[in-house]
Amino acid sequence: MGKVHVSAFAISLDGFSAGPDQSLEHPLGVNGTDMMGWFFPTKTFIDQHGAGEGGETGVDNDFAMKSMTGNGAWILGRNMFGPIRGPWPDDEWKGWWGDEPPYHVPTFVLTHYAREPIVMKGGTTFYFVTDGIQSALEKAKAAAGDKDIRIGGGASTVRQYLKERLIDELHLALSPVFLGRGESIFAGLDLRELGYKVEKTVPGERATHLIIFKEN
Amino acid sequence: MGKVHVSAFAISLDGFSAGPDQSLEHPLGVNGTDMMGWFFPTKTFIDQHGAGEGGETGVDNDFAMKSMTGNGAWILGRNMFGPIRGPWPDDEWKGWWGDEPPYHVPTFVLTHYAREPIVMKGGTTFYFVTDGIQSALEKAKAAAGDKDIRIGGGASTVRQYLKERLIDELHLALSPVFLGRGESIFAGLDLRELGYKVEKTVPGERATHLIIFKEN
Repeated sequence: MGKVHVSAFAISLDGFSAGPDQSLEHPLGVNGTDMMGWFFPTKTFIDQHGAGEGGETGVDNDFAMKSMTGNGAWILGRNMFGPIRGPWPDDEWKGWWGDEPPYHVPTFVLTHYAREPIVMKGGTTFYFVTDGIQSALEKAKAAAGDKDIRIGGGASTVRQYLKERLIDELHLALSPVFLGRGESIFAGLDLRELGYKVEKTVPGERATHLIIFKEN
Repeated sequence: MGKVHVSAFAISLDGFSAGPDQSLEHPLGVNGTDMMGWFFPTKTFIDQHGAGEGGETGVDNDFAMKSMTGNGAWILGRNMFGPIRGPWPDDEWKGWWGDEPPYHVPTFVLTHYAREPIVMKGGTTFYFVTDGIQSALEKAKAAAGDKDIRIGGGASTVRQYLKERLIDELHLALSPVFLGRGESIFAGLDLRELGYKVEKTVPGERATHLIIFKEN
């Protein structure tokens, strides 16, 4: 059976994984893209977004690439899927990623509002799960088979799964920036008591990579 | 004129710089010593505490050593000076560090309760300042002359000085551990808005060193 993991998850030095006031213009919240300074130049990101040739290889890229392999299903929070809050006004919004999202596998979106699945190009199907994080995880496990399940984010979703000790492994990419305000990944969460332990610190070109395991 | 700095200031990955429930047995709070895993093995620490020969050299030690040089005065919060809260019961308590503290210069202790200065061996004199952080800084500047002023900690003291933009430079030593609970250095402080910026990330043997400057 595959593992449940969070990978290439950017955090600022002050512990935020998104800036405040997410919107269509600011998918990661105001100033949130500052955390992604390590990711945007990588070959992985550039390939993934069809942004042309090139891109950097190295430690940061290795982590970015690894985060995209071996995943049989993804789970995303509603805010990671889009800026819309409350009931879906119509079927227009299909994620931030255009016709061909970078997932290529069944992707489960946590929401309080039911919606029909959306089949996208390249193998991604978005399924909308309204009965909680445990249910989404069961569905993702069934879809993933032997492969891994990646919890994509955002902060609130990751925190909910951490609180229930449902994540086996985390890879955080610490960016050397302050966001000052936004969504904290750590606040009010006692990861020590929950049994999480930092296994390894790996310096990258533009971020410090921290590998965290859940102890049994 | 010297700079006002915080150096070799240990923080956990979840942003704590002390564990909860500080006491005589736990000067850094419960589990707080986990953050010091990078510092205790250094030659600087071992020399400083007369703990015998040896100790490791390398990046972590270079930062530890640098933090101790060029300081003409120190400022410490009451909790960094000792575990006693409220009025001083007597003159017994003279800090955690024995007869010869590692400061060797005038050291100003923030407190709400007046007390006579204490002259220690090796050049350290503890002065007790009851009229606030600005006053302590002025006294420290007068004592330091052209040399630097180091704000030793703890978290609350550093946060108070940061909030007033009175710190020019910070060196944080990020330890790859979770404390889960304790005194957060970042919570509720918008360091971005205050004009602080991470200048450099330096991987050490057991900690990741972050150099932060105040922009003008």
